[in-house]
Amino acid sequence: MNEVRVGMVGYKFMGKAHSHAYRDLPMFFPNAPRPVQKVICGRNEADVKTAAVQLGWEEAVTDWRELVVRSDIDLVDINAPSDAHKEIAIAAAKAGKHLFCEKPLALTLADAKEMLAAAEAAGVKHMVGFNYRFAPAVQLAKKLIDDGRLGRIYHFRAAFLQDWILDPDFPLVWRLDRNVAGSGAHGDLGAHLIDMGRFLVGEMTEVVGMSETFIKERPLPSSMTGLSAKGSANKVKGPVTVDDATLFMARFGCGALGSFEATRFAGGHRCTNSFEINGSLGSVKFDFERMNELQVYFTGDDPDVQGFRRVLATDPAHAYSEAWWPPGHTIGYEHTFIHETLELLEALQENRQPVPNFHDGVLCQAVLEAVERSIDEKRWVRLDEM
Amino acid sequence: MNEVRVGMVGYKFMGKAHSHAYRDLPMFFPNAPRPVQKVICGRNEADVKTAAVQLGWEEAVTDWRELVVRSDIDLVDINAPSDAHKEIAIAAAKAGKHLFCEKPLALTLADAKEMLAAAEAAGVKHMVGFNYRFAPAVQLAKKLIDDGRLGRIYHFRAAFLQDWILDPDFPLVWRLDRNVAGSGAHGDLGAHLIDMGRFLVGEMTEVVGMSETFIKERPLPSSMTGLSAKGSANKVKGPVTVDDATLFMARFGCGALGSFEATRFAGGHRCTNSFEINGSLGSVKFDFERMNELQVYFTGDDPDVQGFRRVLATDPAHAYSEAWWPPGHTIGYEHTFIHETLELLEALQENRQPVPNFHDGVLCQAVLEAVERSIDEKRWVRLDEM
Amino acid sequence: MNEVRVGMVGYKFMGKAHSHAYRDLPMFFPNAPRPVQKVICGRNEADVKTAAVQLGWEEAVTDWRELVVRSDIDLVDINAPSDAHKEIAIAAAKAGKHLFCEKPLALTLADAKEMLAAAEAAGVKHMVGFNYRFAPAVQLAKKLIDDGRLGRIYHFRAAFLQDWILDPDFPLVWRLDRNVAGSGAHGDLGAHLIDMGRFLVGEMTEVVGMSETFIKERPLPSSMTGLSAKGSANKVKGPVTVDDATLFMARFGCGALGSFEATRFAGGHRCTNSFEINGSLGSVKFDFERMNELQVYFTGDDPDVQGFRRVLATDPAHAYSEAWWPPGHTIGYEHTFIHETLELLEALQENRQPVPNFHDGVLCQAVLEAVERSIDEKRWVRLDEM
Amino acid sequence: MNEVRVGMVGYKFMGKAHSHAYRDLPMFFPNAPRPVQKVICGRNEADVKTAAVQLGWEEAVTDWRELVVRSDIDLVDINAPSDAHKEIAIAAAKAGKHLFCEKPLALTLADAKEMLAAAEAAGVKHMVGFNYRFAPAVQLAKKLIDDGRLGRIYHFRAAFLQDWILDPDFPLVWRLDRNVAGSGAHGDLGAHLIDMGRFLVGEMTEVVGMSETFIKERPLPSSMTGLSAKGSANKVKGPVTVDDATLFMARFGCGALGSFEATRFAGGHRCTNSFEINGSLGSVKFDFERMNELQVYFTGDDPDVQGFRRVLATDPAHAYSEAWWPPGHTIGYEHTFIHETLELLEALQENRQPVPNFHDGVLCQAVLEAVERSIDEKRWVRLDEM
Repeated sequence: MNEVRVGMVGYKFMGKAHSHAYRDLPMFFPNAPRPVQKVICGRNEADVKTAAVQLGWEEAVTDWRELVVRSDIDLVDINAPSDAHKEIAIAAAKAGKHLFCEKPLALTLADAKEMLAAAEAAGVKHMVGFNYRFAPAVQLAKKLIDDGRLGRIYHFRAAFLQDWILDPDFPLVWRLDRNVAGSGAHGDLGAHLIDMGRFLVGEMTEVVGMSETFIKERPLPSSMTGLSAKGSANKVKGPVTVDDATLFMARFGCGALGSFEATRFAGGHRCTNSFEINGSLGSVKFDFERMNELQVYFTGDDPDVQGFRRVLATDPAHAYSEAWWPPGHTIGYEHTFIHETLELLEALQENRQPVPNFHDGVLCQAVLEAVERSIDEKRWVRLDEM
Repeated sequence: MNEVRVGMVGYKFMGKAHSHAYRDLPMFFPNAPRPVQKVICGRNEADVKTAAVQLGWEEAVTDWRELVVRSDIDLVDINAPSDAHKEIAIAAAKAGKHLFCEKPLALTLADAKEMLAAAEAAGVKHMVGFNYRFAPAVQLAKKLIDDGRLGRIYHFRAAFLQDWILDPDFPLVWRLDRNVAGSGAHGDLGAHLIDMGRFLVGEMTEVVGMSETFIKERPLPSSMTGLSAKGSANKVKGPVTVDDATLFMARFGCGALGSFEATRFAGGHRCTNSFEINGSLGSVKFDFERMNELQVYFTGDDPDVQGFRRVLATDPAHAYSEAWWPPGHTIGYEHTFIHETLELLEALQENRQPVPNFHDGVLCQAVLEAVERSIDEKRWVRLDEM
Repeated sequence: MNEVRVGMVGYKFMGKAHSHAYRDLPMFFPNAPRPVQKVICGRNEADVKTAAVQLGWEEAVTDWRELVVRSDIDLVDINAPSDAHKEIAIAAAKAGKHLFCEKPLALTLADAKEMLAAAEAAGVKHMVGFNYRFAPAVQLAKKLIDDGRLGRIYHFRAAFLQDWILDPDFPLVWRLDRNVAGSGAHGDLGAHLIDMGRFLVGEMTEVVGMSETFIKERPLPSSMTGLSAKGSANKVKGPVTVDDATLFMARFGCGALGSFEATRFAGGHRCTNSFEINGSLGSVKFDFERMNELQVYFTGDDPDVQGFRRVLATDPAHAYSEAWWPPGHTIGYEHTFIHETLELLEALQENRQPVPNFHDGVLCQAVLEAVERSIDEKRWVRLDEM
Repeated sequence: MNEVRVGMVGYKFMGKAHSHAYRDLPMFFPNAPRPVQKVICGRNEADVKTAAVQLGWEEAVTDWRELVVRSDIDLVDINAPSDAHKEIAIAAAKAGKHLFCEKPLALTLADAKEMLAAAEAAGVKHMVGFNYRFAPAVQLAKKLIDDGRLGRIYHFRAAFLQDWILDPDFPLVWRLDRNVAGSGAHGDLGAHLIDMGRFLVGEMTEVVGMSETFIKERPLPSSMTGLSAKGSANKVKGPVTVDDATLFMARFGCGALGSFEATRFAGGHRCTNSFEINGSLGSVKFDFERMNELQVYFTGDDPDVQGFRRVLATDPAHAYSEAWWPPGHTIGYEHTFIHETLELLEALQENRQPVPNFHDGVLCQAVLEAVERSIDEKRWVRLDEM
């Protein structure tokens, strides 16, 4: 397999990030199969045609049903709003296409399971877009844990803090509509934290959550404009049907205690996707706003020079780094997608499932939904209930 | 009232901190009543005599019952282990002495209420030692909130992280014995976070908690040595009867969501007593390891220069700072006790209750105990149940 | 002008960075003329052919003399080692090609002036690759200064700290050979600082420098491997003929004092390209290792909340940012080249000189050479001597 | 020797810092000789009497000539303005008193040498007040260097940045008058940097400097108020006769390159007394605004976890720390004076010269003056010229 022909559904924020990954990957990872940007799909014909030109796709179409069955496509990449994931994925699986789906995998756990079953039944490869795993600094954290250099894990403390809807006049975009987005901060941001916790510390066994929608009504938007919408003067308001913030606590199977917080109401935090892990032999801290850095502490350091080390994960010793620039020359958000895509392409080449895949999507969804049940029923919920 | 004659019970860590406060205060706050270090009390006669000389007390005694009734004492300062607070405080109140009691006020909410009732019945002044309120940077946070400069508060996120018992061979000191300490990280560290939350954001209405003792047994200590004990080679072990870590979530009466974590198992954190508050108009962040600094963010800053400001709270505009050194010359841990003592002495002079007082001690204890009940019964607990 | 056909000489570190800029630019800045990667040139035929494929060039050649006269080329992009810049640039100018030359422009001021004269005589556009100007955080610093928000500038304090040759066994690569590289840390790193100082504060009037080669001899390299060379076991050594570190002080025409340090011997600093500027109304700080951030201080802030603000230059209010990702989603090193290329392409479109151009290259070279003269003659050197 | 009877001249900023050191020392270092605060001296009788009460001195006098000959005084502590140091020190030495003199030792190198000669002739002990050496984090840097853990030193990079006279209306206090203060930022702040460089890296061999007075005239002050003076509305102005900022470069005898900057015009820096040292095996960074921290880097760390460690110098492994509070509980500015005084008292007890002493004062003065000569004559000046 020398190339992988991609058909992509969706062309907004994630569509742009994925397109860029396809474009850049061969320059930096020339030994991987080459992704071919065959066809892009969106509902608005004019917009998707413009996107195709800008984002480098050979062809633009408006009907994803047509796209998923095309014989010149190997992989279907699903970046549509969350409520459309399931139907597209299942159809594509049935057509024998490999799947690359943005997170959250689905609106419900049942849907996610159905998607996984369809992919497995079809025998295709499937990946879910938890891109933050692929920051070199996060890969370093993973390596330290896997190598036992942090010892037994006691704590996982994660917060994804944003502030883009802090203004009460920020309009009611689709991400604030439960029917389309499934949930708010919880599914959008919390899903990343959950995946990070699972990736680094393992499965959780029980959770208890708390949630709030601080601003109950917002001006209706004049147009759907993703994260870049500005405060609106529209006097007609509609109800916000998702959470502005969701917090939960969890126990991990390994005995660690977990603390999770996802909010869009943390002023001053544009995109603080952060975690800290404390183990018996050391600790690590990560903040996506400084994504090239991992703070690392070892209890075994000489007593007079113990302290968190600010490791810039741009050295040859760090994942992916030799493909890029010399040490100290940092990379950015978009690179997580390139590395993620590399994993997908290499898995296709090696005829194995990429990681994270729909199993991870399902397990993440189970935690999301357990937290929601915990909030609804105001009690601890065990994951094995799900 | 030009001077206040103090009798102090306890001479270890807190005894030293309080003694120093009495000693230094007149040099920096010459207009406050002058504390007179009359008599210090401890169980071990030789040790307390040595302490008296070193810490500057006129006299040393071994029986606190004798101390609390002395006519040459105005104020009884209680730094004994937590299980002794109640009896001493009530006896001192009955003898008409003003009270200054370290936190946590008592081992139980019932005890704390009894202490408050005794103090009120006696008509004496009473203070509880939540010293961290008195860091100038914390006072700045309080001022910003009170002045409305952070707007409506959405989030309070607090963690008190330490690592002094991370070594499984660290011995079983009194702070790890429920009968003496009441609880572990929860009462020792969490109490400070709760007080901080109450001070800055207000009362909580309900909580749900989670707790763990990671190391169930530890070597018996050869001697009681507080925080300075080293790893022990003692092969005889005893059970740890307090929590190593306690986390809880809370709702505040004002609508804010609270997240609290207290642990002694966070490697690399010697004393990270930290909080962040997010409001509709701004945010603040504090970490006691950099106690002279408050990070401050305003949503109203010009769009191109928004960001957390690192404010060094050593300017004339900051509380207490003019008493100390020029701007940029920082102060340390011990200064929180000097400011705390200043509040106490000024309250005595002005014939008002100091703040925080036993009411605060009781309300803090109510939260501590609500969390414990929540953990025992594995459910949300409302504060009005307590 | 809808597209610009590029011929590029050199395909190592800078060749890769430039190639990537050409590739990515149209996706993010679709309104700019489209760069067409026509032909790449290198001395080693096999290597340059491989590079052409990986980096996306239509054609590979080995003779730059052939390249610069091709009629299907509009722009010659010069990334060859510094000693080759002059000859290529002059030949390309004579052939009527626009010029894009990496820094330092030349090995000597005389050469640089000759290159500028040739470009001007030919009436072509010319740009020099001071890419760090194009970090959004640096653009913000420039804007604050230009808008007068920092007031009168008193200090410019810059350091470019690296550590890649700290190991005495690091081999004698071309960057350590004066005949090829011109100078060491001074021309490689110091040139960037000088350009930054000129960009932000203006022209200097006099300088005094100091320089050192700490490791006088190094193992000969087995192959030329740029920055990625490892410690060598080669027992045959050769002399290091460039500076390991160069420091200088300067006076600016505006009255500000400048401090400059370039070193490759600062352990722990992979790529700390940093500066601080202090003005009468405010200050800014930048460190390339956290290139998305600018620290900003205003003397006019309210007295109780004065402090450096950590501004993440990823908001819509910041240069280039709307082309990329939502606020808080950072970019990396390579993006400086994309923005730099954008300036070049827009200048070509608008028929104006891009900035920085060969004038800037000459003025930078004048400072570099004044510092060298100052070191040689151990005295202050005025720029008007040059 | 169980106690040392002190007579102190001066009662403003330094007088307060020294008084506090005498007061606190016995509580934390009970094994050292006990300082006895016998007599304080100042020119204004009412003020010095008030100071005596507040600062804890037994007696107040107005004539230092009387003080230095008193038989009940062992040590004369000189905190008067710099122009008075010499006369007092020589008189006290002749009277057989030990000497503790604030920095800078004198207004000129000749004066400093005369003071040293007088002290040596009298056979008394002499100390000079370079208090910053005594921060535990600085002591750690010293230990790392002395133990060879940083290897061969290549760079010393120091800056003492303040901003208290940034306002052009800040009045013409004594520190801005050459006749009293000797110099401005150079002698006040630069002296500390020079001492730090000498302490950590060794003697310098040659220097070249640059200096500026940005604001040439300032309002005359209504009263002399040290660092706490506010902007003045006084329309009568006088000339500023000292430097606002002085920078210099130096070569150390060990081969290291030094960079020094002292300024009072760095907005946002209240008291950034900072240095960085780069050696062949590691680096350290210090900033007094976070004085409990030392950043430490080792080249020998595992390749994937290299980075500056933030060491909080409050552990038992750190100098002085066990006398204070548990790990993570920080100390402040005033503690440097307590540690400095401890060195003095222990030296008296052990009948040895304390360090730093007048030799250090002289050698610091030599560098200060070499820099001044370098500025006056606009050339490099060798220390052996001095």
